Amino acid sequence: MEPGTVRMETFSDGIFAIAATLLVLEFGIAHNGDLGRHLLHLWPSYLAYVTSFVTIGIIWMNHHHTVSLMGRTDRTFLFINNLLLMTVAFLPFPTKLVAQYLQGDGEQAATLTYAATFVLMSVIYNAWWRYASGGRRLIAEGVPDSALRAVSRAFDPGVPMYGIVFVVAFFSPLAAVFLTFAIAAFYLPSAALFDRSGQP
Amino acid sequence: MEPGTVRMETFSDGIFAIAATLLVLEFGIAHNGDLGRHLLHLWPSYLAYVTSFVTIGIIWMNHHHTVSLMGRTDRTFLFINNLLLMTVAFLPFPTKLVAQYLQGDGEQAATLTYAATFVLMSVIYNAWWRYASGGRRLIAEGVPDSALRAVSRAFDPGVPMYGIVFVVAFFSPLAAVFLTFAIAAFYLPSAALFDRSGQP
Amino acid sequence: MEPGTVRMETFSDGIFAIAATLLVLEFGIAHNGDLGRHLLHLWPSYLAYVTSFVTIGIIWMNHHHTVSLMGRTDRTFLFINNLLLMTVAFLPFPTKLVAQYLQGDGEQAATLTYAATFVLMSVIYNAWWRYASGGRRLIAEGVPDSALRAVSRAFDPGVPMYGIVFVVAFFSPLAAVFLTFAIAAFYLPSAALFDRSGQP
Amino acid sequence: MEPGTVRMETFSDGIFAIAATLLVLEFGIAHNGDLGRHLLHLWPSYLAYVTSFVTIGIIWMNHHHTVSLMGRTDRTFLFINNLLLMTVAFLPFPTKLVAQYLQGDGEQAATLTYAATFVLMSVIYNAWWRYASGGRRLIAEGVPDSALRAVSRAFDPGVPMYGIVFVVAFFSPLAAVFLTFAIAAFYLPSAALFDRSGQP
Repeated sequence: MEPGTVRMETFSDGIFAIAATLLVLEFGIAHNGDLGRHLLHLWPSYLAYVTSFVTIGIIWMNHHHTVSLMGRTDRTFLFINNLLLMTVAFLPFPTKLVAQYLQGDGEQAATLTYAATFVLMSVIYNAWWRYASGGRRLIAEGVPDSALRAVSRAFDPGVPMYGIVFVVAFFSPLAAVFLTFAIAAFYLPSAALFDRSGQP
Repeated sequence: MEPGTVRMETFSDGIFAIAATLLVLEFGIAHNGDLGRHLLHLWPSYLAYVTSFVTIGIIWMNHHHTVSLMGRTDRTFLFINNLLLMTVAFLPFPTKLVAQYLQGDGEQAATLTYAATFVLMSVIYNAWWRYASGGRRLIAEGVPDSALRAVSRAFDPGVPMYGIVFVVAFFSPLAAVFLTFAIAAFYLPSAALFDRSGQP
Repeated sequence: MEPGTVRMETFSDGIFAIAATLLVLEFGIAHNGDLGRHLLHLWPSYLAYVTSFVTIGIIWMNHHHTVSLMGRTDRTFLFINNLLLMTVAFLPFPTKLVAQYLQGDGEQAATLTYAATFVLMSVIYNAWWRYASGGRRLIAEGVPDSALRAVSRAFDPGVPMYGIVFVVAFFSPLAAVFLTFAIAAFYLPSAALFDRSGQP
Repeated sequence: MEPGTVRMETFSDGIFAIAATLLVLEFGIAHNGDLGRHLLHLWPSYLAYVTSFVTIGIIWMNHHHTVSLMGRTDRTFLFINNLLLMTVAFLPFPTKLVAQYLQGDGEQAATLTYAATFVLMSVIYNAWWRYASGGRRLIAEGVPDSALRAVSRAFDPGVPMYGIVFVVAFFSPLAAVFLTFAIAAFYLPSAALFDRSGQP
């Protein structure tokens, strides 16, 4: 009577991979002047590209791991998952803003938009996990509580960390972007640690 | 002798996920003036993005559910499915029109195009379902008639509702977009309700 | 020792679905004048979109059917398949040319490019099939010769038909595009007829 | 306890297919002058498109083959794989640079960027393979050492060859692009040779 997780995963995987690949469209090309110098001055674009790409990769890995702990879904959960995908698919836009405005006029507005997207994403992602795990609502039989606590420990710092990025963006847009990158680097090992099933 | 449904689902899933992710390309960036103010004035873009994204997600969920009731396809059905995918893949264009023209000159033409796309989509989608379910033409053995009636009840209001959006767009483009969003919200629970299989 | 077909199908399916969805990016938006009138004058864009989308859908269905008759691949075949995918993924560009130039200056060059792409595609597709089926090189055990002959009969008219489109484009670009659409319509029933397996 | 390879393959396959299809977006359209002449002068775009498309196809085939030799992954490997995908998904940008600047001002900077991307990609790809194969760290049981040596022999020339392209780009950008194409042609047979499993 309650929906399984397979279809949700298929749709989600497609969105993650496409959003990551669309990031490259942020790179604009100057129409005059020296191309070599222009390409070197594009470093905010490279930084934004790497930061967003790694972050999407990590969200994807965590999504896969946590879904593997679930045995079913319900309508509320599918709704929250749709909201989560909507923020992931939106990411190429604030990434492009950072790429084009960092170190120039408008860098504060660009970075605040970038940080706000991540705050929103982490809030939704936390709600997504709390709804699924609360009272083991959607958790499969046989998953030990310790596994759930491990996931919760990884989710907990997400919102505060991205909240700090948002505050930092008011004072130093550049530092905010580097901090976003550092968060991705921070999550990388734990993301990989999660991912311990997956054999066909 | 008659084609199965697996290939059609693979191709359709790809189109749904890519069309949803391409929506983000609607967001343009102003080249002069204050970026922060510009980003706030982009709210029609955010509204159009959310509306189209949620609608595609719901069409995808319903598509999956109804296909799971079918045991075979035929050439006419594949033709209709191709038409359906063509309207889904077209959606990023009218979404971009709404994003760029809402609250400005041309908002009526933009919203009428947006609404017309949804009218066309719901007409094709209804034909798609009526063809498959009429006389249980493509329905798998063992699917109870009550399940078919439940799907039909969900499909029936589609064309009238989007027809109303089209009429409203003549008088108030903004109201038409909000109404489109409301229809997606209206379908969301029933879409999730449908989705009750899917376990591997 | 010889490669199977699964990976080739996965990669090919992705290319087909993405190329079809990228077609929508051809639609440009006018920056001045009346939007409603502009959208009506875009009919070459709609025609080009529908023609290319339906054609990709049909090539995809035929690709799937013919690959299902094969039991293995080899290095030459993978090379030819890669060339085929390259022309499919290229299609959004000539489609955009037709969309922007039909009924204006440059319509002949645009339509010739469009037709040339289809000629090239059909030549490669024929070579693809002749290589696979010649002496039953890659055909699976148990596939009757009659099935191979049916496929060959469907492939045979491809190159001559698109060759005629190319010639027609010299005299009437508009007629050439309509003819391309007619070819897709011609292939649609046979494509669906092919597709008779696919159940999981 | 250690992660399997399935999820990594799904995400990677999506990135490969999307990056290859996004290459077509490099093709710009001139807004004035004779379209026919313009399309003929676009040959650097065609060359860059074919070169990048074939290269991505080959990297994808090798990726699939080598992953099929692995029985597990770990966090370091997933990190390296993410870096590899990031360079693959980046490829549409330097391809566009070559397409727009070859045979004009800035062709050296464009081609150096193109070559540098391939150097970086081949360095990461080599590290990816050395990490996985060193001491049979991630290799599945039953894979003979001779299979590993065959892969290593194919990987070894990658970095030197793309290093030569980078050097050549200083003197003749055009020759560097042709050389990149030649490397893809060189790898094509060995890539296909690798791919000898894959039957469902």
